[in-house]
Amino acid sequence: MKIVIIGAVAAGAKAAAKSKRLLPDAEIIIYTQEEFVSYSSCGLPYFIGGSFEDPKKLIVRSIDKFEESGIKVHNFHRVTEIFPEEKQIKVMDIKSGHEFVTDYDKLLIATGAKPRIPDISNIGLHNIFSLRTLDDGIRIRETMLKSKKAVIVGGGYVGLELMEAFVHNGLHVTMLEHNLNIMNYLDDDIISLVTAYIHNSFEKNVVIYTNANITEFIGDERVRAVRLSNNNLISADFVALCSGVEPVVDLAKSAGIALGKTGAIKVNSRMQTNIPDIYAAGDCVEKINMISNTPMWIPLGSTANKEGRCAAINMCGGVEDFEGVLGSAVTRFFDLTISKTGLTTRVAEDLGYDTVSAIITKRDKAGYMPTVGYLTLKLIADRRSHRILGAQAVGSSDADKRINILTTGMIKGLTVEDLSDTDVTYAPPYSTSIDPLIDAVRILKEKLACCGG
Amino acid sequence: MKIVIIGAVAAGAKAAAKSKRLLPDAEIIIYTQEEFVSYSSCGLPYFIGGSFEDPKKLIVRSIDKFEESGIKVHNFHRVTEIFPEEKQIKVMDIKSGHEFVTDYDKLLIATGAKPRIPDISNIGLHNIFSLRTLDDGIRIRETMLKSKKAVIVGGGYVGLELMEAFVHNGLHVTMLEHNLNIMNYLDDDIISLVTAYIHNSFEKNVVIYTNANITEFIGDERVRAVRLSNNNLISADFVALCSGVEPVVDLAKSAGIALGKTGAIKVNSRMQTNIPDIYAAGDCVEKINMISNTPMWIPLGSTANKEGRCAAINMCGGVEDFEGVLGSAVTRFFDLTISKTGLTTRVAEDLGYDTVSAIITKRDKAGYMPTVGYLTLKLIADRRSHRILGAQAVGSSDADKRINILTTGMIKGLTVEDLSDTDVTYAPPYSTSIDPLIDAVRILKEKLACCGG
Repeated sequence: MKIVIIGAVAAGAKAAAKSKRLLPDAEIIIYTQEEFVSYSSCGLPYFIGGSFEDPKKLIVRSIDKFEESGIKVHNFHRVTEIFPEEKQIKVMDIKSGHEFVTDYDKLLIATGAKPRIPDISNIGLHNIFSLRTLDDGIRIRETMLKSKKAVIVGGGYVGLELMEAFVHNGLHVTMLEHNLNIMNYLDDDIISLVTAYIHNSFEKNVVIYTNANITEFIGDERVRAVRLSNNNLISADFVALCSGVEPVVDLAKSAGIALGKTGAIKVNSRMQTNIPDIYAAGDCVEKINMISNTPMWIPLGSTANKEGRCAAINMCGGVEDFEGVLGSAVTRFFDLTISKTGLTTRVAEDLGYDTVSAIITKRDKAGYMPTVGYLTLKLIADRRSHRILGAQAVGSSDADKRINILTTGMIKGLTVEDLSDTDVTYAPPYSTSIDPLIDAVRILKEKLACCGG
Repeated sequence: MKIVIIGAVAAGAKAAAKSKRLLPDAEIIIYTQEEFVSYSSCGLPYFIGGSFEDPKKLIVRSIDKFEESGIKVHNFHRVTEIFPEEKQIKVMDIKSGHEFVTDYDKLLIATGAKPRIPDISNIGLHNIFSLRTLDDGIRIRETMLKSKKAVIVGGGYVGLELMEAFVHNGLHVTMLEHNLNIMNYLDDDIISLVTAYIHNSFEKNVVIYTNANITEFIGDERVRAVRLSNNNLISADFVALCSGVEPVVDLAKSAGIALGKTGAIKVNSRMQTNIPDIYAAGDCVEKINMISNTPMWIPLGSTANKEGRCAAINMCGGVEDFEGVLGSAVTRFFDLTISKTGLTTRVAEDLGYDTVSAIITKRDKAGYMPTVGYLTLKLIADRRSHRILGAQAVGSSDADKRINILTTGMIKGLTVEDLSDTDVTYAPPYSTSIDPLIDAVRILKEKLACCGG
């Protein structure tokens, strides 16, 4: 049995390790075009910010460790073609340029995602960085330490994490977002709290332009400024591109592997593509949203790990299903915790749900505790079935706790009525005696009682 | 409509406020034998420890606020008898000794719980305190500030919270627990982590004796020492009795109100007792454990609030059910968070379940984050149905998050298989990319697969 895995960050690395445990005698080979394998790209903003010194700390499992356990790892090797009929792949050794063909019994595509590079004039100037690999992180940190002014293109969660890193290191930051709002995977009422927090806390260090269109980057060798469509010039010692990512699917596509409507690889619950013996997992595949049962592309390391494990079990002859995701996420921005699960009001309405929601702001702990903070919680339900569709929270420290509380229930069809019976823990350092979640549920119940449903 | 409420801490106060909102024209009268109403007794250890100066901060809603909203509050008034046939009660004004009889349309018994006072010789000596009311808290703090050596009788969560308060104020603390273990509402494997933490962190300030039987308190006016059955003498400047609480049911019992098998008042899901128009809520009532569907007595402020609200809705002519509790709890002890939900292995086995459990110790955040800590999680399932029966966690900061995640699922019959599909949030400051909960689930799945079920 020969299992070949393309990609080695999260899904690929997990699948290799799990396969070796399940079939110790199988030949397991990883090809990756990168230098490093099995690292936490989610940790890059914290390395850049200086939470720790050594970027190698981000490596979960080194190549040596893989090799010790009997997994062959070929870094700097790019897979350029898949021949499904022959069950073979063509591989190029990037350093030597040498190409060769090798066969597989089971193939896992874990090619991940790559930064979306906007089509802007002079984007090739020095000091314009995207952030995906360990090397990207090292270069951004080195540049940041010599800089005073940073421009971040894109206001998603990576943009926000980099903003924290840069501000923490004393830089002035301009964030440019081409949408009408930053963090636009959340609802506007929640986003406005994040932007108010940034404005109030970092007025002198941070400027955010939304609805911003960059027309060109200006500089000779190095970028010196960014020009917007309104002719504003924003000076920059360097630029971080955080305009999102897109699934790496070219290799799969040219082999005839079907993509889903999101543009990512379509797999079933066993991580199988439409071609026998070819599996796919991680950021390159489409996921099923367990609330709406619709395909969505939500690339996250936690999901990639689960999918890699599921693919390994099935490749090795077992049976395992991965049912999908809720779209749960959390981001820290200084003192603020921003978290969500399920559908936003906007997405739910787009999908045809008639939603009802409650939004409350409350103390997150007993008012007399010195650690007390505030929390805003939005809870969204389906007016017809009373099912909880999603939730978003913004607040101090453990705002994500209330989001996570919902997750096990939501996969079981949790309704507003169910939720009011939920028994969450209480002690003064952790919550209010009536948890904010329970308050939000009561408002939802009243809304549903008075306005039909 | 005249609603009379006996007791005004959590359930009683909540019921009064809710009733007034529902029926603004109703006459709502509270009788309480205490001076203060509507206060957080859960916050007393933090006042004693010095987290805040003013004990009045513990008052959620003052008597003046109640009176302003049209609720009559009679403090220092003890209800001495209920006449169900006549729908009347007899009340004594404690200050004047004057007694009177008044009638009700709906009566709510919210008499709460009282400290269990062990039957030990000389327990009436000065400086032996129990902790229930605001006054108790004020007296203990005053005494602590003048003392060097404290003895705590009873190693439950209140005992632990007081230990933190005393050690934080520089005292030497001896804890005496008559059971074989402190914190015996948890399983032994989890308790041993708590005791190891206390021993390692506070070796010089804290001694714990388990299996300890106190034979007498020694002193003239003031307690000076505690004698154990093995003749050990432990010197003490003061003693805090934390030997648990018992429901206050004498008044109800003598009126013919049925008690449950736990000794607390038996109510249905609408908080009705067996006598028409008499409701009961809060620490004086028995609860249904939603996992085992058996009666249990778990007195907690969070539950009392829910029950008070439920009783109010039903007294005012609405329909509301309170289904029960999971037995969720959290306690902080210095850096340690101790949390549980559902049944312990011990209780589950006593109830006849064939349990299977997984216990893991893991990092609680990405290993490279400066805030990383450790967490031990125990997950308990029913071998037959694979249903999650309970969980316990001990660890740094947000160990309770993993416990709370389970709660919404558990009321919907969450199984081990369901749980492995759960999508919890991930970012390096909050979790590991594979959450400890997911690791524990995998071990459970393997145990169930290999050993039947």
